[in-house]
Amino acid sequence: MDFTKVQSVGNDFVLIETADTKSDWSILAGAVCNRHFGVGADGLLLLMPSDKADFRMRIFNTDGSEAEACGNGLRCLVHYINAKNVSDAKNLTIETLGGVRKAEISGDSGKSRIRIGMGAPIFEPHSIPVNTELGKGGLVCGMTVNYPFQAGNVPLKLGFVSMGNPHAVYFTDKPVNEFSLAEIGPEVEKAPIFPRKTNFEVARVRSSRSIEMRVWERGVGETLACGSGACAVAVASWIMGYTGDTVDITLPGGKLTAEWSGQGDVFLTGEAEIVFTGAWLK
Amino acid sequence: MDFTKVQSVGNDFVLIETADTKSDWSILAGAVCNRHFGVGADGLLLLMPSDKADFRMRIFNTDGSEAEACGNGLRCLVHYINAKNVSDAKNLTIETLGGVRKAEISGDSGKSRIRIGMGAPIFEPHSIPVNTELGKGGLVCGMTVNYPFQAGNVPLKLGFVSMGNPHAVYFTDKPVNEFSLAEIGPEVEKAPIFPRKTNFEVARVRSSRSIEMRVWERGVGETLACGSGACAVAVASWIMGYTGDTVDITLPGGKLTAEWSGQGDVFLTGEAEIVFTGAWLK
Repeated sequence: MDFTKVQSVGNDFVLIETADTKSDWSILAGAVCNRHFGVGADGLLLLMPSDKADFRMRIFNTDGSEAEACGNGLRCLVHYINAKNVSDAKNLTIETLGGVRKAEISGDSGKSRIRIGMGAPIFEPHSIPVNTELGKGGLVCGMTVNYPFQAGNVPLKLGFVSMGNPHAVYFTDKPVNEFSLAEIGPEVEKAPIFPRKTNFEVARVRSSRSIEMRVWERGVGETLACGSGACAVAVASWIMGYTGDTVDITLPGGKLTAEWSGQGDVFLTGEAEIVFTGAWLK
Repeated sequence: MDFTKVQSVGNDFVLIETADTKSDWSILAGAVCNRHFGVGADGLLLLMPSDKADFRMRIFNTDGSEAEACGNGLRCLVHYINAKNVSDAKNLTIETLGGVRKAEISGDSGKSRIRIGMGAPIFEPHSIPVNTELGKGGLVCGMTVNYPFQAGNVPLKLGFVSMGNPHAVYFTDKPVNEFSLAEIGPEVEKAPIFPRKTNFEVARVRSSRSIEMRVWERGVGETLACGSGACAVAVASWIMGYTGDTVDITLPGGKLTAEWSGQGDVFLTGEAEIVFTGAWLK
């Protein structure tokens, strides 16, 4: 079985082109994603024909479960379509379990940049969900900010936003690599105010156009990058007045550009690359 | 650049056939071994011509440094030679930085079993090295055993042996998956009595022919398997009279068979498999 390994900001996927809707891909996903006995990846992407959009994407996690969508996975899939000349269109629609998504491609096929709509932020506490009244700590443009939170003996001020999944954002004045994320991440993630736990971002504003951040992903731990986390940070930073409508976000795995103008969808642009092609022999 | 991914007991390698002795393979090793931006592997293996032996193996760690030898890497290389019909000989000599090594192949090419001489154990404390007198705790067949060691509030009895690298072996009566290796491993590894630190094995004897074990590797942490660690456990168990000349050793990554008869080389037999072939595009 032929496959292609594609990565974006360090989030890596095994991509297979197939029209096979009958196979149990979840079993294969577990096998190929294993980093010692398989190919090794964060997920399995299937590029399939669609009768609702230009293409269909299915995405499976390493445990075999099917995911609704993933910004980095979608970017990898669209880069593959462009780099391999599966289509030469620069605007594509992709059917996912979470609905039809749009992507725009710029740059050449070797280093294409892909812009994806990531949906609109949600600030209402019970929809995030976070068990607090709206605006405890502070309310700016509808978002709860500066919520006082004690992580062990470290006091934090958190902002709460959902990008389809919950995020708690903390801004620091110090370089983010000095932050004790391995200790504080789990304390925020599992705090009782988050009934479904939360993702947690620590961010530092470098300029009105630039932010650095690290992310602690719910149920995973620290990762190299997280698209919805980058959106959450861009939205919180816009609301606090730190940055404008377009901001470059540097994560451990690479750089993304976020666009938001105070309402509607957040757009995220970044690169993806094909690392290798292979033939699975097991 | 074409490559093949091969694994044995969960220790996985990118293997390249080449006669190129001029390239700086250490840079490529770092890139291809990266699990998110590269192919992902524990090391890079080069299969090269030799004028001293049937073939030559070079092995590079993920940090680009060249290693003297590695039992699992050698087994993967020999399996590749057999499975890809590079040679149909069942006894091969392989030139490594650590000298010429011998390997015997049995079984068919799909599931070949490879038997490798792992060298002889060394018991003299200053050669291991461990800063203790020979036989403190107990001396059996020349090996220091039952050395009293306190890891936090857990008392251990350790046996010391070198297989070219230092090992401290602890036998428990309980299933090894109940042992707190993440806490106790670092305490043993970095204890002051080991001037070059140590690898640490926890093992349980299941029968006179079967042992289960886990390994904490010096500078790495817990791994799926360790060939020299399996030899250290087999030797210590033979010396304690727990097992005989041939013993199956079950590690988290799979099974190995060790042979030792009280002197000379330890032989280790295990399987390897080709997982996928690929073309590196970066």
